[in-house]
Amino acid sequence: MKETEEGVVRSRFGKKMDETALMFSSSLDHDKNIFYYVILVDMAHILNLMKSLYVSEEEAKELLKAIIEIRNEGFETLGNYEDVHEAIEAKLIDKVGDSGRKIQTAKSRNDEIATCLRLFARDRLLLLMDSLLELRRVLLQIAIDKKDVIMPGFTHLQPAQPTKLSHHIIAYHDMFSRDFERMMQVFRRINQSPLGSAAFTTTSFEIDRERIAEFLGFDGIVDNSADAVSSRDFSIEAVFVGTSILLTLSRIAEEIILWTSEFNFIELPDEFASSSSIMPQKKNPDIAELIRAKSGRIIGNLTAMMSMYKALPLTYNRDFQDMNSLLYEALEISILSTGLMARMLDKIDFKEDIMDQKAGKKFTVATELANMLVRKANIPFRSAHEIVGRIAMQENASPSIDDIDRAAMEVAGRKVSESISKDDLEKALNPAHVVEATSGTGGTSEEQIKRMLDERILLIEEDEDKLSDIVETVSKKLEKLYSEVAGVID
Amino acid sequence: MKETEEGVVRSRFGKKMDETALMFSSSLDHDKNIFYYVILVDMAHILNLMKSLYVSEEEAKELLKAIIEIRNEGFETLGNYEDVHEAIEAKLIDKVGDSGRKIQTAKSRNDEIATCLRLFARDRLLLLMDSLLELRRVLLQIAIDKKDVIMPGFTHLQPAQPTKLSHHIIAYHDMFSRDFERMMQVFRRINQSPLGSAAFTTTSFEIDRERIAEFLGFDGIVDNSADAVSSRDFSIEAVFVGTSILLTLSRIAEEIILWTSEFNFIELPDEFASSSSIMPQKKNPDIAELIRAKSGRIIGNLTAMMSMYKALPLTYNRDFQDMNSLLYEALEISILSTGLMARMLDKIDFKEDIMDQKAGKKFTVATELANMLVRKANIPFRSAHEIVGRIAMQENASPSIDDIDRAAMEVAGRKVSESISKDDLEKALNPAHVVEATSGTGGTSEEQIKRMLDERILLIEEDEDKLSDIVETVSKKLEKLYSEVAGVID
Amino acid sequence: MKETEEGVVRSRFGKKMDETALMFSSSLDHDKNIFYYVILVDMAHILNLMKSLYVSEEEAKELLKAIIEIRNEGFETLGNYEDVHEAIEAKLIDKVGDSGRKIQTAKSRNDEIATCLRLFARDRLLLLMDSLLELRRVLLQIAIDKKDVIMPGFTHLQPAQPTKLSHHIIAYHDMFSRDFERMMQVFRRINQSPLGSAAFTTTSFEIDRERIAEFLGFDGIVDNSADAVSSRDFSIEAVFVGTSILLTLSRIAEEIILWTSEFNFIELPDEFASSSSIMPQKKNPDIAELIRAKSGRIIGNLTAMMSMYKALPLTYNRDFQDMNSLLYEALEISILSTGLMARMLDKIDFKEDIMDQKAGKKFTVATELANMLVRKANIPFRSAHEIVGRIAMQENASPSIDDIDRAAMEVAGRKVSESISKDDLEKALNPAHVVEATSGTGGTSEEQIKRMLDERILLIEEDEDKLSDIVETVSKKLEKLYSEVAGVID
Amino acid sequence: MKETEEGVVRSRFGKKMDETALMFSSSLDHDKNIFYYVILVDMAHILNLMKSLYVSEEEAKELLKAIIEIRNEGFETLGNYEDVHEAIEAKLIDKVGDSGRKIQTAKSRNDEIATCLRLFARDRLLLLMDSLLELRRVLLQIAIDKKDVIMPGFTHLQPAQPTKLSHHIIAYHDMFSRDFERMMQVFRRINQSPLGSAAFTTTSFEIDRERIAEFLGFDGIVDNSADAVSSRDFSIEAVFVGTSILLTLSRIAEEIILWTSEFNFIELPDEFASSSSIMPQKKNPDIAELIRAKSGRIIGNLTAMMSMYKALPLTYNRDFQDMNSLLYEALEISILSTGLMARMLDKIDFKEDIMDQKAGKKFTVATELANMLVRKANIPFRSAHEIVGRIAMQENASPSIDDIDRAAMEVAGRKVSESISKDDLEKALNPAHVVEATSGTGGTSEEQIKRMLDERILLIEEDEDKLSDIVETVSKKLEKLYSEVAGVID
Repeated sequence: MKETEEGVVRSRFGKKMDETALMFSSSLDHDKNIFYYVILVDMAHILNLMKSLYVSEEEAKELLKAIIEIRNEGFETLGNYEDVHEAIEAKLIDKVGDSGRKIQTAKSRNDEIATCLRLFARDRLLLLMDSLLELRRVLLQIAIDKKDVIMPGFTHLQPAQPTKLSHHIIAYHDMFSRDFERMMQVFRRINQSPLGSAAFTTTSFEIDRERIAEFLGFDGIVDNSADAVSSRDFSIEAVFVGTSILLTLSRIAEEIILWTSEFNFIELPDEFASSSSIMPQKKNPDIAELIRAKSGRIIGNLTAMMSMYKALPLTYNRDFQDMNSLLYEALEISILSTGLMARMLDKIDFKEDIMDQKAGKKFTVATELANMLVRKANIPFRSAHEIVGRIAMQENASPSIDDIDRAAMEVAGRKVSESISKDDLEKALNPAHVVEATSGTGGTSEEQIKRMLDERILLIEEDEDKLSDIVETVSKKLEKLYSEVAGVID
Repeated sequence: MKETEEGVVRSRFGKKMDETALMFSSSLDHDKNIFYYVILVDMAHILNLMKSLYVSEEEAKELLKAIIEIRNEGFETLGNYEDVHEAIEAKLIDKVGDSGRKIQTAKSRNDEIATCLRLFARDRLLLLMDSLLELRRVLLQIAIDKKDVIMPGFTHLQPAQPTKLSHHIIAYHDMFSRDFERMMQVFRRINQSPLGSAAFTTTSFEIDRERIAEFLGFDGIVDNSADAVSSRDFSIEAVFVGTSILLTLSRIAEEIILWTSEFNFIELPDEFASSSSIMPQKKNPDIAELIRAKSGRIIGNLTAMMSMYKALPLTYNRDFQDMNSLLYEALEISILSTGLMARMLDKIDFKEDIMDQKAGKKFTVATELANMLVRKANIPFRSAHEIVGRIAMQENASPSIDDIDRAAMEVAGRKVSESISKDDLEKALNPAHVVEATSGTGGTSEEQIKRMLDERILLIEEDEDKLSDIVETVSKKLEKLYSEVAGVID
Repeated sequence: MKETEEGVVRSRFGKKMDETALMFSSSLDHDKNIFYYVILVDMAHILNLMKSLYVSEEEAKELLKAIIEIRNEGFETLGNYEDVHEAIEAKLIDKVGDSGRKIQTAKSRNDEIATCLRLFARDRLLLLMDSLLELRRVLLQIAIDKKDVIMPGFTHLQPAQPTKLSHHIIAYHDMFSRDFERMMQVFRRINQSPLGSAAFTTTSFEIDRERIAEFLGFDGIVDNSADAVSSRDFSIEAVFVGTSILLTLSRIAEEIILWTSEFNFIELPDEFASSSSIMPQKKNPDIAELIRAKSGRIIGNLTAMMSMYKALPLTYNRDFQDMNSLLYEALEISILSTGLMARMLDKIDFKEDIMDQKAGKKFTVATELANMLVRKANIPFRSAHEIVGRIAMQENASPSIDDIDRAAMEVAGRKVSESISKDDLEKALNPAHVVEATSGTGGTSEEQIKRMLDERILLIEEDEDKLSDIVETVSKKLEKLYSEVAGVID
Repeated sequence: MKETEEGVVRSRFGKKMDETALMFSSSLDHDKNIFYYVILVDMAHILNLMKSLYVSEEEAKELLKAIIEIRNEGFETLGNYEDVHEAIEAKLIDKVGDSGRKIQTAKSRNDEIATCLRLFARDRLLLLMDSLLELRRVLLQIAIDKKDVIMPGFTHLQPAQPTKLSHHIIAYHDMFSRDFERMMQVFRRINQSPLGSAAFTTTSFEIDRERIAEFLGFDGIVDNSADAVSSRDFSIEAVFVGTSILLTLSRIAEEIILWTSEFNFIELPDEFASSSSIMPQKKNPDIAELIRAKSGRIIGNLTAMMSMYKALPLTYNRDFQDMNSLLYEALEISILSTGLMARMLDKIDFKEDIMDQKAGKKFTVATELANMLVRKANIPFRSAHEIVGRIAMQENASPSIDDIDRAAMEVAGRKVSESISKDDLEKALNPAHVVEATSGTGGTSEEQIKRMLDERILLIEEDEDKLSDIVETVSKKLEKLYSEVAGVID
């Protein structure tokens, strides 16, 4: 809590706040996440105050210099205040006296914090999109490198049908593509400025909300001022997209854990494994386990935020404050986990031989066998399914035409051997043939894999361009702010 | 479980499934939600099988007639099966014999359920968007009707500044506008067809995935077939947008509960209130309380779905099934709650006199008084804030210029009376003046309210058009399906 | 809503409730869960009213006969009302006229629903404890039957050290033992009667709260009447113990899924497996997957209930109603899942050979090898760990004394061969020896396993006795109620 | 990560861990919470190793001195390691060389972390129980001081019946009494030692698990060693009891927010209120809002932990690590929030006049009026309810006997005036009489309030004794440890 004798804030009450209560209610610990955004907002705000003549050019110069000093001194030199806004205001007053007491003209902590949260979320979403693009690139590269590697595909964690590693990996890529799209859309709703809303009705000072929004790199403003300070849907949906990404990451993580276990499909890179303090032979997939855990943690963050937000009347409530650190943490987790997964996957060694060898085990070709009976012997699918089911019961992974005839007699009352050649049977039992045969759009055939890869290479390029455009637009606006600030100072 | 002797499904095992296990694992109870979608899928699938010559025209006719019969007989006449897919297949076989056994050719329950879930979610999102438009219209109408009604605005549930009811209501409208936008975007990701993915690799039968997607009113297909059957992000994000809506609904609900309580700002319509079994004088806001509760419930649905989905390896896992009923319930709740809120708000009686009378109580004009001191007497804002703070401590809600001078002397060491006219003071203390003065973009002034209302009337019209376009596009595609079905049958 | 002309309830308002609002707010769908408890409460209440002379003996007789009729007619014959309390009151009035209009004397829906919820939770907890005892018995029987079966134990899902199946299974038993203890404790808090609290202040009618509590089999009363009607901590903690059980069930379920997959440790019984609609060879662990999913679902139930309950002011709020169906579902899920797991485990076939054969693979004996070096060659543990780590790097699962010497030289600068006999090495490398060597309290040695089994056999017996005692106590109290009812009727 | 050249841990792999991966996986940030417990465990462990002759008395002395040095140097002087266990081991080796390399003999991080978590949770539960006792004392004192203050009681936040502030406050006390009981029970399950379980099978070194448990103040051991290292139910239920407390705290917080708002029942102490940066008249209930928010946050912690724990196979998984900081935070929040609420309530000023004056407003006496009609005029309750309902419709808060007669004629076809005296009516309409009349057990009458207060004074004393006993028992055991340590060192 402030020690300056003026008592910048909280001057009204007879008694000072209870020490524990102050500690409990202070957000300063977490405010380091938004320190630079508060500085940024103050810069733009001072320019605005100057334009509206609420501070003179001289005062503006003084204030801007001081605010830059404060930035350079860093977050750690702020004193012990309720929050970063109070701390910076006190420091400003300390540095420049009376003109510092003008900084909150036409501004409230309500619109300021909403603005800083959006700036934070905006920048973290940009970083997250960048990480996600990297992850998608890594996935695509694996799919390209291993495009012909055959492996067993699973349903219910049981070997089900032969598939290709590339097909499997593209599935993950596509999930993340949708997350990228979600982020782009969420970004547009987040990158809107609440500044100028003051407490919640705007202010009787003349302030150009659009201009300050432009200075801060926003796409526009949150129009209604009560909405601007009392909505946190932007924060919740930012965490939701993070959660969406982590849910898919947790699925890859689970597969990494399984595949380094009895599945034995991969070898972890040393850099992403740990050993044991007691069991010297161990090579543990800790990073994958922790990413899996983080998906649970971010579910908790999202749940907590929603539970806090529920049923809060308009406009500002202090409960909002406690949502902020959950936002900071959630986006941090998302960026870290996405980046780590990309780097870990990039170095994983896929054991192609073992995958290939297991692709046909446990009679994974059964479906194709049934399909062949439908096509060649004109058996209705359900009956073909039963015929093959009987063969499967006999644990005969490699049935002869006689075996099939026996089962067909039982199920359909007729033999099928006349319609089936030995070649038909061999193909149906061969995983390499089967993955070529499942050639529907989006399937495992060579042609489909190639098409999917080609399209996704282009898609990633497009998404890179989209992201670059955004970054450039934001940067240009901020540069304009910096240049105007420089113009006043010099 | 089916008792027909063919044993359509599960024929392979020696022993039948445990009765309780079967009950536990059956989804039939909830499958009524997708019954018509299964029928729809079967129609489109039969046409596809016919085109690919897997069933003859005669068989297709037989099958289509039977599937329409099954639809007309209704969900309730299905027997006791593991799920609706099995039940319908069994009924088809019962009706048309061997050609019924062909219905699962080139299709798996994996792609079928993913398709039906998307069709369900699509239609519910359309209904929800429709309800949300209605709610936005009701909100806007209230804002138009009450556009000049002054009321106290709250922060921390304490009277803070005078505001207008219309401004308050527009804030809610804008939150729902963003939800509408979210739904539109989610809709595009949902309205994609997984059909033809079969188990997860597509199928070796020739099937035109794009054609069947068109028949079902989809915008396109989910390309990678493993992604198509093993992703449930679409389901989770559909529930998330419902949750987003309900969180805002819970805030209005909370205000309705408060405003019918000691706030006394509104009178509930009889149709949306209940009495007590023991206290005859009570008029309770039960509907608002239940909507508030539903926001908690849907948080639970979302949490459960994410927790279930977390760390599931590819491709299909039975856990997915248990997510479905949470989707059904969540969207049902969202539609009902949104519709009810619209109808309840439409009939609420706002007590304008009481709002107006409380608008200036508890010194809500203090901020404007401070602002006036800044502008007229050139006091730095922080000092003006302190001056007014001292007045507020004296519980003097209507200070004289002398009072202000006294406080200004203490805080700033100078009087302000020379700079301030009686008229200045009167205006600053008058809530009606204050709400006009806060005229920043998105503020409470008459001009700003008018502008916001005008823009939102147009926005709602645009959103209505967007929704109509979607409904029309889907309908036309479905009509084409029906017409092709009719062409085969007749 | 009732259509009888008296308008039993809601008589005060000018307009009837909105149809959708009524549907939305009706709890009737879920009230079937408490139907018999409402009947029970009414019985006890009528006896109480008679004792206090609020109804005559003749009226009591009439009312009791009618209430038994209503019970026999069943829940389905109740009309369309807001809830089961209203419905039964209306039916009573219908059957016996004016004396029916006395049934709510000294009673409110507030205390009635709290009472019925506690009766429901009490009975379900008893069922759940019974199921849990069965599950513990099954687990213990497996541990007894397989007490010497050696298997690899896992950390991070990597083979870590040899262990015994019985030891592994006892771990699960012990987790459930704690859940049993939790349930016993929760039971005591739940089995308390709120009845007689009326709306929340008790009533001015003379009512013997202790007597009616006795009639209903409660252990006592919830003293403070506001607490009695406005607390739902009992409901939340009942769901929490269910969640605790399901979390552990989900872990066993996960292992069942893994162990039927590439681990290949078990064979599922046909009765608890399903096949595929398209892949005839599949044998899927659906029941295990669904139990795993249910743990996610019940997390959602608990989260929803807590989120609804949060920040509700005293006393009754309609939000409470929406918590009820989550309670019903959560306890139902817990009982079903526990029972199914018991029956499934009972029939699982453990592949002892495969377990045994894998027990020593992947150098799981490394820890014991290091320990032996500590004991025999006086190498500090951390150095021994490093020595063995070097051997493990060489993928030499069966090192010679020379290998060890080489590594010891590198790490500790000295050989160890003099201190180690060939027998020492063989033992350390032999999983069967290793599991005997880890003979600390609670370890895997034969003696420890035997002790643990013996103690748990006794513990289960004790827990059975505790449960029987409770059931008997409750039953006796209810019998007294029935007998008094019979006394009045005859 | 460690910089010592020996490479204490993780020596086996060719490549060092990726830097970001290391940062991501390090728990060191949060390990400060358990630093002193690790020291404690090491002390006890060293004594155990000495007793079993794995270290000499001289080595033990050296190690104990070093471990005390490390404690005194503090957590902050630990280097950059994966976790606190590694860091301390490295520092020990640094200080005492080879004997330091013996510290992990017969110990694994698996049993060590489980032990430290239980020690942490144990101590925090003791603090929390202490805070909760303080809160209960404060509540009881308010109830004693204000025992006759009448106020309106609410259902659905609508004035419902007159009640007493003391009755209302006792309800909260009783909710917290149950939480205290829960904590006592949870404490018993938590205060059990996993130490000696090593990785999960115990160890082949001779270790006295019971003795070390005694040294650490545990009540006993977690028997099965796999259970001991792979269960986190103790951690989850510790957070659950915290959540249970916070849910009730959030309800009081909500009432504080309401009661300082338009309800106007209380005045907040300055020490627990904040002002506004822009609105100088504001006095905001920030602490209450933040406590309300914390209930949402801890719901998130619990949800996250359960979601992480779900479906983890035995035994240790790295996911467990990420649950720990959620435990630390949850218990910290619980202790802080409970303590703050106690101190805030202690200083709240209750506006007795306003409560009293509002007690009878909005016809809260209606129920008693109906009850009086039942008793005096022998009207069935449902009819009396309707009669009073009609009066309530006329907004006549103070009906005459004529008014009642008119309504009685309409509803019951007869007058009641002959049975009702003026005194009867006056009493029924007088809140002070009504709260005396609701004199059932646990009701609002003077006698009941007195009884409840007396019993709770005793109950708190009993609970204080129970808590003291536990603290003393734990302390004595720890003193024995310290004394043995001193014995070796000196």
